[in-house]
Amino acid sequence: MADDRFDHAGMEVMSTKECLRVLHDRTMGRIGFVDGGEVVILPIAYRFRHGRVFFLSSGGSKLDAASRGRRVAFEVDGWDGETRTGWSVLLRGRCSPVPPDDEELAAESGLLPWLSSPLRPMEWIQIVPDEITGRRLPGSQIPPDWD
Amino acid sequence: MADDRFDHAGMEVMSTKECLRVLHDRTMGRIGFVDGGEVVILPIAYRFRHGRVFFLSSGGSKLDAASRGRRVAFEVDGWDGETRTGWSVLLRGRCSPVPPDDEELAAESGLLPWLSSPLRPMEWIQIVPDEITGRRLPGSQIPPDWD
Repeated sequence: MADDRFDHAGMEVMSTKECLRVLHDRTMGRIGFVDGGEVVILPIAYRFRHGRVFFLSSGGSKLDAASRGRRVAFEVDGWDGETRTGWSVLLRGRCSPVPPDDEELAAESGLLPWLSSPLRPMEWIQIVPDEITGRRLPGSQIPPDWD
Repeated sequence: MADDRFDHAGMEVMSTKECLRVLHDRTMGRIGFVDGGEVVILPIAYRFRHGRVFFLSSGGSKLDAASRGRRVAFEVDGWDGETRTGWSVLLRGRCSPVPPDDEELAAESGLLPWLSSPLRPMEWIQIVPDEITGRRLPGSQIPPDWD
């Protein structure tokens, strides 16, 4: 009989609640999108609050272009080479500038840019998810301090 | 005058030598590809040897489908929240099963699967890169033990 706690490859399926918890607890993830027909993966500092991923982007970059209404993937993971355990969460949704009325929500997340320049003003971007899934190696715990 | 040591966003451009070194030293990265019109990002244990990314895949998965000749992105990064420093390397190329004559090369890399099942035999997959680029936050060092 099929066991829906495990996926095709034998990975344990994480509950939505677990996925949301690690998204909330972590602060560094990777965004993936198609640019000029090629997949790009870029690390971003983020906060997950109010059901959305918030991050900061400066004008003119590839990331900035992707932030104008494109569908993106966003991934967070944690691994422990000693115990050979780990997990990953994949979120999919649409990327857009944070509406002016919500900028206070985004700022309250406490995120600060890792790199800033007075010449390149940062703008708040959000990813509104329509799908969140997670997998972990069997027996893996998910402490919030994994990195 | 433009300074080509920095990219548009103010990130420092890593040399190809530095990119190759961190690819060699690290063992966990993320592969990105398009599946059914959507970008997927999956973490993979890997080894970078002989100018190629080697990893193991079991049959029937999304990753397995992407391994049959599709173009993919592969990303490795390291971050330190205390010093707010970090770097990332992005490799692009084509994914394919390792030819039988090269399986010994792949096996010599020392990679062991994190998850294995007697029901799902693992197969060696390679990514042959045609582009490798890297960026780091200004002032970031790249010790091999960052994770």
